[in-house]
Amino acid sequence: MGSLDSNFSVNSTEFKPLDPEEFRKQAHTMVDFIADYYKNIETYPVLSQAQPGYLRARLPETAPYRPETFETILQDVEKSIIPGITHWLSPNFLNLSCFKALVVGSYKAQLVTRSSAPSSPRETVHSRTWALIISGKLVVYGSDQTHSTYTKACKLAGIYPRNIRSVPAGSDTCFAMSPVALRKVIDADVAAGLVPLYLCVTVGTTSTTAVDPLEDLADVANDYGVWVHVDAAYGGSACICPEFRHYLDGIELVDSLSLSPHKWLLSYLDCCCLWVKKPGLLVKALSTNPEYLRNKPSESDSVVDYKDWQVGTGRRFKALRLWLVLRSYGIANLQSHIRSDVRMAKMFEGFVKSDSRFELVVPRIFSLVCFRLNPHPGSYPGYLDLLNKKLLEWVNSTGGLYMTHTVAGWTLHAEVCGGGYTHRRVSRSRRLEVN
Amino acid sequence: MGSLDSNFSVNSTEFKPLDPEEFRKQAHTMVDFIADYYKNIETYPVLSQAQPGYLRARLPETAPYRPETFETILQDVEKSIIPGITHWLSPNFLNLSCFKALVVGSYKAQLVTRSSAPSSPRETVHSRTWALIISGKLVVYGSDQTHSTYTKACKLAGIYPRNIRSVPAGSDTCFAMSPVALRKVIDADVAAGLVPLYLCVTVGTTSTTAVDPLEDLADVANDYGVWVHVDAAYGGSACICPEFRHYLDGIELVDSLSLSPHKWLLSYLDCCCLWVKKPGLLVKALSTNPEYLRNKPSESDSVVDYKDWQVGTGRRFKALRLWLVLRSYGIANLQSHIRSDVRMAKMFEGFVKSDSRFELVVPRIFSLVCFRLNPHPGSYPGYLDLLNKKLLEWVNSTGGLYMTHTVAGWTLHAEVCGGGYTHRRVSRSRRLEVN
Repeated sequence: MGSLDSNFSVNSTEFKPLDPEEFRKQAHTMVDFIADYYKNIETYPVLSQAQPGYLRARLPETAPYRPETFETILQDVEKSIIPGITHWLSPNFLNLSCFKALVVGSYKAQLVTRSSAPSSPRETVHSRTWALIISGKLVVYGSDQTHSTYTKACKLAGIYPRNIRSVPAGSDTCFAMSPVALRKVIDADVAAGLVPLYLCVTVGTTSTTAVDPLEDLADVANDYGVWVHVDAAYGGSACICPEFRHYLDGIELVDSLSLSPHKWLLSYLDCCCLWVKKPGLLVKALSTNPEYLRNKPSESDSVVDYKDWQVGTGRRFKALRLWLVLRSYGIANLQSHIRSDVRMAKMFEGFVKSDSRFELVVPRIFSLVCFRLNPHPGSYPGYLDLLNKKLLEWVNSTGGLYMTHTVAGWTLHAEVCGGGYTHRRVSRSRRLEVN
Repeated sequence: MGSLDSNFSVNSTEFKPLDPEEFRKQAHTMVDFIADYYKNIETYPVLSQAQPGYLRARLPETAPYRPETFETILQDVEKSIIPGITHWLSPNFLNLSCFKALVVGSYKAQLVTRSSAPSSPRETVHSRTWALIISGKLVVYGSDQTHSTYTKACKLAGIYPRNIRSVPAGSDTCFAMSPVALRKVIDADVAAGLVPLYLCVTVGTTSTTAVDPLEDLADVANDYGVWVHVDAAYGGSACICPEFRHYLDGIELVDSLSLSPHKWLLSYLDCCCLWVKKPGLLVKALSTNPEYLRNKPSESDSVVDYKDWQVGTGRRFKALRLWLVLRSYGIANLQSHIRSDVRMAKMFEGFVKSDSRFELVVPRIFSLVCFRLNPHPGSYPGYLDLLNKKLLEWVNSTGGLYMTHTVAGWTLHAEVCGGGYTHRRVSRSRRLEVN
């Protein structure tokens, strides 16, 4: 296949997330901002004097298209965010995220009014639901390409392991879940007296970035009253570009969606957005109301108590991090970032196609190219696996590129994780699947 | 009760976690360190070339007694930690914690050898266990002072809500769980054909910092083969001082312990240490082994795969943060920090005792003083509640002090969260209970 010139560039206008020197400048500004806050902490009222909802009027409804300057954003933090914060000054020092926000700007800097009042756990326990849970009859559905945490999480939630379905998704559907196959599996379960509970649809699977057909799958699930969750952890980020948005068609039919900006939206671990159509159901299941957490804003239903959306009580102010990312890059640059990665993947796909020793294993959708070395078509599969394993080991031994591998269908694959082949930058979002 | 002179000082040698100017200096150094790393990222091999276990030989077995300089610690990060890191350079920029460590220094900077090999989920599902889970017969035990997440987490794990026990812990035991009461409850459950599964013992409850008698409770639980977990989220930090360590007597009898340094050990949210006596049990329940995560070090059992200790796959490098705290303060200063808070609480306790209008509600153990206003002993309880509620509202309206409240036993209490009354610093760890 030969080597690329080390000065080779994909595109001279390629999006560059942040120059180290620009980072240095912004981070020094941030340090002074935090040190000044820490120095003046005693001038703030300990408990926020802001009224619930005050932030909605102060902030725009949507993310800006163009980037905003770091100075503008910091001014907004000072003027709009800090007045809504309870100044728990724990004596730890590297901490902007320790603020316990009374009012937290969510994904779109909107404040959602809590849809149902907290009630005591005993009231929210529905005997019929629990009778079902302990009956061992509840069934959950994913494909054999669904993320490995699907099985773990369902087991942890008390789903009997033999009721955790992994609908086979092979190369005939490009590793996407088939609505026809799903209906067959559900029908068989219903006939056996089981109760379908939950379906996980994936937009961008881990192995091959396959996209399950959301709308058709949701249609099937809705026929049985099944909760539909969309795992768009990786692929969801691409949907900020209009050309990818159709992968979310049918989203109005689902119950929840998760998206991890730390995967492909310039945010760091861990940053996961969860959208729930009816948050009241979550609150019913998870709210507790110990006396020491009671307060007027919560009891007036004018704020969202995120403690009722999760198991733990405390939360880090991760929304602030994402808000900083959205404002400092703007939609325009975030789209450029996604498109730049996709463009590089397309280019690599071209290299694979033009070299007869390699073959594409599955069509490229986002920024992952799945390919394998197959110099002598018709070779014995075991020989091919060995060949690709050797290629993988050889590439990784160079240290300049990190390849991971996967198995999709019945053949062994290897995927390259991280870039470096352009000698310009390394990104974990381009994974080039070999074998 | 009068007011304190605004220049009043508890103790001239009081421990000061970090001066804002010292923070500024260290943080600027850290920013340059990160910017330089980012600038030179391409000179590092993407995949770590270090051998599993290499770090154990390079780092001390225990935390230092005296603080170390920031420069020394950063040098160790550069020389010892970075070579063990896979350089996923996600293009996000404020990120030292995004490093996906191949080898992570744990609490004592030790590397624990994984005690059992990962195996497929199907192999680890024990039919007998699952038959029990779905039988609705498993019972869990805490007291009515156990943290509110106990109920939530147990429900989430599929425990039938009517099998979640909250053993009453009243003022007669200073709100600690009684081993005699626990045994009675378990005996009744066993007689009813139920199966005792789990006991949560708390060292430092949320409402009153009560300490459950660990050794005696574990003795009871062990008679029934119950998993004993110690929630030392708050009180555990105090146990770094020899004078508090006896609260953990009997720790050899328990199965797991959690401690949250973000509560009282100068770390920020969220930082929780979990110790498990037999990690193999956790791995059996939670390990998955998808092809794309397979690698030689994991398969050789020479590293700990923390993905098998949790639901998610990725982890932030929180251990690094705690390691920085331990080294930069040293045991000596961390002990001073705990003792300084306890000393201030003792002083406040003295104020309450010397004022006939107030009374202590429960003996002080750590840095929480539980008291209430009771100017006319023998008053009607409703009047007392109202009086203390008014005091709470009045104090909070000043903005200078943040009080939260709780109910312990049958009387309403209010607790002060945050300090400020010395006009010197605010700390969330001194909570002074009123009413």
